[in-house]
Amino acid sequence: MSDSVKFLLDEEHLPTHWYNINADLPEPMAPVLHPGTKEPVTPDDLAPIFPRAVIEQEMSTEREVEIPQPVRDVYRQWRPAPMFRARRLEQALQTPARIYYKYEGVSPAGSHKPNTAIAQAFYNKAEGVKRITTETGAGQWGSSLALAGTFFGLEIVVFMVRVSFDGKPYRRAYMETLGAQCIASPSDQTESGRAILAGHPDSTGSLGIAISEAVEMAVQRDDTRYALGSVLNHVLLHQTVTGLESLEQLAMADDYPDLVIGCTGGGSNFAGLAFPFLREKWQRGLDTEFIAVEPSACPTLTKGAFAYDYGDTAHLTPLVKMYTLGSGFVPPGFHAGGLRYHGMAPQISHLAKQGHLAPRSYNQLECFAAGIQFAKAEGILPAPEANHAVKATIHEAGKCRESGESKAILFNLCGHGHFDMQAYIDYNAGKLEDLVYDDAEVAMALAGLPSGC
Amino acid sequence: MSDSVKFLLDEEHLPTHWYNINADLPEPMAPVLHPGTKEPVTPDDLAPIFPRAVIEQEMSTEREVEIPQPVRDVYRQWRPAPMFRARRLEQALQTPARIYYKYEGVSPAGSHKPNTAIAQAFYNKAEGVKRITTETGAGQWGSSLALAGTFFGLEIVVFMVRVSFDGKPYRRAYMETLGAQCIASPSDQTESGRAILAGHPDSTGSLGIAISEAVEMAVQRDDTRYALGSVLNHVLLHQTVTGLESLEQLAMADDYPDLVIGCTGGGSNFAGLAFPFLREKWQRGLDTEFIAVEPSACPTLTKGAFAYDYGDTAHLTPLVKMYTLGSGFVPPGFHAGGLRYHGMAPQISHLAKQGHLAPRSYNQLECFAAGIQFAKAEGILPAPEANHAVKATIHEAGKCRESGESKAILFNLCGHGHFDMQAYIDYNAGKLEDLVYDDAEVAMALAGLPSGC
Repeated sequence: MSDSVKFLLDEEHLPTHWYNINADLPEPMAPVLHPGTKEPVTPDDLAPIFPRAVIEQEMSTEREVEIPQPVRDVYRQWRPAPMFRARRLEQALQTPARIYYKYEGVSPAGSHKPNTAIAQAFYNKAEGVKRITTETGAGQWGSSLALAGTFFGLEIVVFMVRVSFDGKPYRRAYMETLGAQCIASPSDQTESGRAILAGHPDSTGSLGIAISEAVEMAVQRDDTRYALGSVLNHVLLHQTVTGLESLEQLAMADDYPDLVIGCTGGGSNFAGLAFPFLREKWQRGLDTEFIAVEPSACPTLTKGAFAYDYGDTAHLTPLVKMYTLGSGFVPPGFHAGGLRYHGMAPQISHLAKQGHLAPRSYNQLECFAAGIQFAKAEGILPAPEANHAVKATIHEAGKCRESGESKAILFNLCGHGHFDMQAYIDYNAGKLEDLVYDDAEVAMALAGLPSGC
Repeated sequence: MSDSVKFLLDEEHLPTHWYNINADLPEPMAPVLHPGTKEPVTPDDLAPIFPRAVIEQEMSTEREVEIPQPVRDVYRQWRPAPMFRARRLEQALQTPARIYYKYEGVSPAGSHKPNTAIAQAFYNKAEGVKRITTETGAGQWGSSLALAGTFFGLEIVVFMVRVSFDGKPYRRAYMETLGAQCIASPSDQTESGRAILAGHPDSTGSLGIAISEAVEMAVQRDDTRYALGSVLNHVLLHQTVTGLESLEQLAMADDYPDLVIGCTGGGSNFAGLAFPFLREKWQRGLDTEFIAVEPSACPTLTKGAFAYDYGDTAHLTPLVKMYTLGSGFVPPGFHAGGLRYHGMAPQISHLAKQGHLAPRSYNQLECFAAGIQFAKAEGILPAPEANHAVKATIHEAGKCRESGESKAILFNLCGHGHFDMQAYIDYNAGKLEDLVYDDAEVAMALAGLPSGC
């Protein structure tokens, strides 16, 4: 048995700055528009929603953004996160490929999400905010913000998509144990929620609805702001610690990836790993490939339109240009809640549109099979979301076996699956099936995209 | 906010040897007896149960036992494990105490148990064993052996106490996903199981019964051996990596503990942390104190008898001299399954009897409250077992606040609580109550202790 190898950085290698890809984009991005006027938003427009520092980061083109010391002090609890060479998986696959994975499941919440939750909580606290509202689907993000709330003494209110609120009691218990308030969405606490419940009293909710509720509650009180766990520029910025660390860890391994792979829901874990490697590619003229993996049942990058759309169902958020399946699209109930979002990060969308990354989709059964194969080789059971990146990695490693090429593959193992055992139970019992999006429903949702922008 | 500090060792500081406390015991331990003859067991007596290398370790008085390279190669995936100074907890408690915790939840199974599971799997594999049987209560141990099975290509059969098999489907799913076979105990697959079922068709099982079943199945086939997750000398030996690492990490912190604290079920996580510090105490004439914390509902060290007893219900195991509540004692159903065992490691029992460590018990409500206080300060939600060590630590830190003394306290945070969220749900909902052992039942069980040895 040739064993898997860990590459661990000393604490002094914890990044001091995040990397802002806006400084290096070959073409500028389309502006964010005000939902009412459809004119470019100003910082003042966003002030009721986000703290000033976050708004500045959202709009910044500064290449290096300093990570505040108190944020680094918390990061240090689990960062630098380990990177592994998956030698046992390579052997199981009999591939000449060199497989590396960055493991973000070592955070106390079990995923990459605290990288931005800690930062957002810090900026809110620094500006006197007392309470943060947010939404959560599978619960990874809500758990991470709950955690950040304990570190910075903030009240956290989480609108949890009803189907997860009922079906994932353990995630909810984790948040509540850390002192966060969890509300099933749609709820009767907001106009957006009441409007949905009036038409659909049994609504199981969606991320789009939960975002509407959280934003609505945030703007009602001066001491409250809203936090988003993916999609926006500042969130992707905070996640770049993973890619920056991985660059150094690959140098320790005396290697460099030919392929960089991540799963994409809103896009933040993929961006966090990929963006620092994109900068290297552009600066050094490399030919690294980037694969963004999404579920076939929510194929935003592979089947969506590149258009202006809202981030939420009630259309309270600004309009962003992105790949979207339409803000009215409700994906089928597959077991990777973190990937069930109608849109995609504008930065990822922009880069995909320009051909800088290759989107790809897989269905859930093959992803679970890949995740279990990984677990049996490497001992870590991935979250269902991360299984998508594992599947693409195994697929590419299989191509290397056929061609005899020894490519280096790096993927983001963005979280463990300890809170997702029901999904594995269902998979093991043969109860899961492949789900595909409904062409007609997507066409209808896309037909409803906002016009005039 | 003064942040918590992590002490992380480089990989070259991964211990090369385990520490065997048998070499340094001030008085020799009582011999292990054959259950039939009641004469001291020989290695041959144990050969149908354990591989030779493990039997040698069980009986060894060699001070340093080399950790085989393949075991170190697997350890390296998560070891050296971090030690933290809990500055945020110190602040929350307003204590002058310096609180350190060794965190074993970073292993892929989420607890300290893989430290011995990996070693035992290696030794079995090296001697040609194809299949290992074991028992599990809460599931931490079964999960760890399942993990070790994937690393070394061994078939793993886990007899899971019926009440956990039914009530902890996520733990079971974790083991099954890694390829282990889980059987609810008592089962119809063994004589011991059938005997119990004949009398009690609805039996919810116990660790003692599950051990009987696993041992019985192991001795039936030449290619099968049995593995135990705590209690025995070799298990405690393998756990000493935690204490050996902690010694080096405290040197990094330029500190040394006045108090060393761990929870005790079978005793292995406590021993792993404490034994290397006991050696230091004896060698250097220090006055370090050692606190072994157990649940009030299963008060082996604080209320049991120091006597020869069986490790299992069907009396298939050898007789060991230990603190015991009687092998017929079934503890009430509190939420720390790993601490529900009638006996205690003979080494721990011996040291407690001689006054080298101070046993203490707490009830479950105060332990959950302490665990949640810890989670809110440090961000890590402990397993219910570990909450007992947290409670004692907070208690001692409170005494420092009152006295003004700045003691250094080190405790073993032996696992995270991600698989134990139902316990937290019940606690948060006010559904848990303090349970105490039944004096009369214990007296009856103790009256049934084996005689003539």
